Parts: sequence; structure tokens; C-alpha cells
Amino acid sequence: MARSLAWEDGSVVAVDQCALPHDYRELRLRTVDEVIDAIKRLAIRGAPAIGVAGALAVAISAELHTVDGRCDLDAVLADARRIADARPTAVNLSWAVDRVLTRLDGGAAAVLAEALAILAEDEDRNRAAAANAAALVLRLCERRPLRLLTHCNTGRLATVAWGTALGTIRALAEAGHVEEVLFGETRPLLQGARLTAWELAEAGIAHRLCVDSAGPAALAAGMVDCVLVGADRVCANGDVANKIGTYSLALAARRASVPFVVVAPVSTLDPTLATGADIEIEQRSADEVTAFGGVAVAPAGTAVFNPAFDVTPTDLITAVVTEQGVFG
Amino acid sequence: MARSLAWEDGSVVAVDQCALPHDYRELRLRTVDEVIDAIKRLAIRGAPAIGVAGALAVAISAELHTVDGRCDLDAVLADARRIADARPTAVNLSWAVDRVLTRLDGGAAAVLAEALAILAEDEDRNRAAAANAAALVLRLCERRPLRLLTHCNTGRLATVAWGTALGTIRALAEAGHVEEVLFGETRPLLQGARLTAWELAEAGIAHRLCVDSAGPAALAAGMVDCVLVGADRVCANGDVANKIGTYSLALAARRASVPFVVVAPVSTLDPTLATGADIEIEQRSADEVTAFGGVAVAPAGTAVFNPAFDVTPTDLITAVVTEQGVFG
Repeated sequence: MARSLAWEDGSVVAVDQCALPHDYRELRLRTVDEVIDAIKRLAIRGAPAIGVAGALAVAISAELHTVDGRCDLDAVLADARRIADARPTAVNLSWAVDRVLTRLDGGAAAVLAEALAILAEDEDRNRAAAANAAALVLRLCERRPLRLLTHCNTGRLATVAWGTALGTIRALAEAGHVEEVLFGETRPLLQGARLTAWELAEAGIAHRLCVDSAGPAALAAGMVDCVLVGADRVCANGDVANKIGTYSLALAARRASVPFVVVAPVSTLDPTLATGADIEIEQRSADEVTAFGGVAVAPAGTAVFNPAFDVTPTDLITAVVTEQGVFG
Repeated sequence: MARSLAWEDGSVVAVDQCALPHDYRELRLRTVDEVIDAIKRLAIRGAPAIGVAGALAVAISAELHTVDGRCDLDAVLADARRIADARPTAVNLSWAVDRVLTRLDGGAAAVLAEALAILAEDEDRNRAAAANAAALVLRLCERRPLRLLTHCNTGRLATVAWGTALGTIRALAEAGHVEEVLFGETRPLLQGARLTAWELAEAGIAHRLCVDSAGPAALAAGMVDCVLVGADRVCANGDVANKIGTYSLALAARRASVPFVVVAPVSTLDPTLATGADIEIEQRSADEVTAFGGVAVAPAGTAVFNPAFDVTPTDLITAVVTEQGVFG
């Protein structure tokens, strides 16, 4: 299985997700600031992937700030805070940063070992969550083969390997159960059109792209057997933050009596937040919406509302599936 | 009030909606095929506008096929069929064509007179529908000033002048009742980003653009007091076909207990169709979704589901408002 993130010679090696689908190329990131920049501009994106990259960035910091065997803890903690704040909504980033910081007393080598453990675990966790979700989908849906709807990109690019919701689709396709995958382009940054289309073609799974607002119409028209999405944060009550557009799919799935399944690693669960109202939703810049590939599409100076995520209330979610099992 | 469609010297004169927001220029269309082409490529778009343009195109045909005072009825009827079929979903187009054809026995001059009557009536009908809808919105919503959400473009560009849903927003703004208009960019062809942003700026009404899937999130977040949209066809049971993305706004409005009001002229009502299931939904080409301004955004050959419209069921609609009053 191709891996989208690795650690080589003191660098984070990542598929450059800004260059796809036209160019498949690797980034080699040697500094904390390079990793933060890659996360902020979504060259590395996907909740599990930014968690792994963030953990490795803390390891880079710990190595940098170790002189004569002594680690400057304050400097590493300051870097760790900047890394965790690179993007606010996906809890996996702060989860991974916090997890490697628990090893800071052991020095830079211990921090790196913990980051590498997170990296190494990711594919197995994804495959386990996907297997759990695939089994659930086969129980929930009678039709064979299945017509699945997903959103954004939750595949190998969004993780170290395999993927979560898209990993579930991979597992179902390997078993011969997938007729077609419909997916939204995912405005504004087109992770669906650019990344999911590329991954599904790479995997040889039949797929069709649509504008995001056509997903609800497809559900209403009876074209979809199950919706599968990932998550950036799951609250204590089961409310889920995920890429903008997820909420409208959940509303339409409920109206059409179609199962709506969230697939995510346990690291996406955030029991410290009671409900979705407590989640910080990242607001991104206006030019993501007013321009397209550098070409202005709206009048100059047009004001924009550009939330990167929305919140799907727990009552619209059939189940949240992790590597540990099915919740809901 | 600026007019977006006119009849001058035997030509249909229209604002070129493909050139906005960067260029404001007029098209002068002298032949049936030029009008059909303009409608198909959405240089003229908006249900009322294509009705008027279609009616004038029939008049062009009747004039062309009149020799020595005798009109070749078969030739005009054949042209009329091609005009009515230029786009299938908005009923206004076939309504206007059928209306002018009733005058064909009177010759080319009678056909033109009827087409010019449709052109002349449009602004008054829009202003009357907008006044009815504005009064309804003020009854339904307590908050002042109002935060309104709309979709696509239903303004002066989509009509001859004033507009329907956007005309209602104009009427409310003139009375000092509008705090902000939020509107979706309207993928794939960006009528919101390109046209509605331009019209609201022209009208001096505060506005913010968002990706289409952020509209439901804004509703869930309590940012919207009322949704106002137009329609391309209203069925006997009250189901409404409108621009893709309308349905998800209706679902989210219902969930948030926010009124969802459709504003359209009576010519948009189609009592011959029992329900939305009977409406032909136009499917448009893949490259509207896979490319942007000529730049590919998805891998070459990606298959696409690209419906131009969706159907909002009547139970999600607070009211359909026309120049004759409030239904629902």
C-alpha cells in the first residue's frame, strides 16, 4: 500500500496535496516552520495526516533544541503550541502533539520514537476502523452492489495509508460490493475533485464527481445506498465536525432514510467538548472563494463567509465507527 | 431601473451574463439560432429572462418566414419547438413560446406584439411578486434588520428588470430592513459569485458570498432569518424545481425553523405536472464541473453527475409567492 507520509533522514516526507491531481510529487520538510506552513496551506491535510505530521514536527523541534544532551523544554513547548494551533478544528493535531509531549522528559529520541509510533500505527488503525465500518454498511444496506456517497478526501492522502471513510470504500470494493462512488468536489479547495477522484482512479473504483449541492439531490433521487464521511472532531454527545458540506449530506440522508456513517480513528474523539456548539470552526480566507486557480470569479472586494467545517448533530448520524468498534 | 433585456431594431438586446462580473457588455441577437445559443450557454439565463428571449425569438422567426404577407406556419412552429427545447426545466420558456404562438394566425406583427407584451409586463409582475413576498417576510420574521439567504441569481439579470427573490431583497432593502444578504456561489457556473455579487454591489446592499454547502451551516448557526429563492417550475402540488443547491437550503431552513420562501411569476406555475417527480431535470456537461475557466481541476476523464436543478418538496416550503399573491 502506497504511503502518503513518512520519516526519512530527519525529514517529514509527504505527498504534496496542493499539486494533485496534475503533479504527484513529494515534499521534504526539515523544519517546524516548513511543517506548519504545509499544514496551513493544506499541502498536508486530513485529520489523521496532520496529527502525524504535527507529532514529527515536535520531534524535529526536540532534536533542534537539544544541545549537549540537554533539551530546552520551554522552546519545544513553544513550538508544540504553534504546531497544535496551525489548524484549530481537527482534534487529531493537538492529540498527537500532546501525546509526543508526554515523552519529552525522555529527551528528543523518546519524542521521535513516540511520533514514529503514531506514524506506524496509523494504517492499522485505519484498516481496523474501515473493516468495522464495512461490516456495518453491509448490515445496514440490502442493495448489492452498493452506491456510496462520500465527501472531501478521507483516503490514503488524508492519512498515512488506506484511509478512513475512503478506506471503508476500498474495503467494500475489494470485496466486490461497490457499484459506484459519488463524491462532492468539496469547495472551496476541491479536495474531492482533485484528491478523491485521483485516489479512486488509482484504486480502480468506479466513481462520479458532482458539485457539493448535488449530493443532497442524488440522495433525494434514490441514487445512494449509504453516505460515508470522515471526521475532524467528535464531541462527547456524538456531534461531529467535518468538512463544510457534510451537514447538508446528513440532512438529505435522513430525509431519504439512507444510513449516514462517520469513520474516524479514536484519536478524533474529543470527550472534553460536550456538544458541537463548543467546537472552534476554522474560518479561512476570502480568496479561497472569490478566486479559482488564481482567476477572480467574484467582483473585487466581495466579502466572504468561509467556514472550513460544519457540525453534524448526533441525531442525524447512524453511527461513528472507529478502530475500536461502532458507536451509535 | 436598468433593464437586462430589450428589443431594438429587430434584435434581442441582452446583458451578456457569461462576461460578468468582469465585463458588462450587451449582446445583439438577430437570429433564432443566436438566441438559442445564448440561452444554451447561459449568456441569457433566469427563468423569466429566457421566457422573454424565447418569445422574441419566435417573433424573429415569424418575420423571417413571412414572404409577400404570407407566414410559413410550419417553419415558425419548427423554430418554436427548437426554441422551447433549448433548456428543459424552466417552464417559463415553453409558456412564453406557447403564448406568442397563439397569435400566429395574426401574422408576424401580432406575434411580435405579444412578445413585446411579455417583455413589458415582466418588471411589473416582478415588482408585484416582490412586494407580496416582502410583506410576507416582514410578517414571518421578527428580527430587524433582516439577515437573508438566497441562491443563484434571481435579480434584474434573471428577468427583464427588478427580479423575483432578489427583487424581494431589493424591496426589503429599500425599506431599510436588510442587515446582510448571504448567498451561495452557485456551482458549477457561479451565478451567485459572478452575478448576484455584482447586482447586490450595484444596488448598494450589504452582502457576503459563501460556498454553496456553507448556506446550511449558516442556517444551523442561527445566522439567517429567512431564505428567499426563485423557481424554474412549480408543480400542481407545490413542489419546486430550482437551481441545484436549493433543496439543501430548504432542508437546513426547516431544521432551523427558518422560513423558506419561493418568489416567482405566475408563468412559473405548471399545473400540468402533478409532483416534482414529473419534472425533467436538465443534465449538463461534465466540463462545467471538471474544469474551471478552462483549467482542469479533476483528473482527465473523470465522470460527472451534473444536474442543473433540484426539486424541493412542498412540505419544506413556507410559501410560493407570485404577483397574484401568497400560496402555501
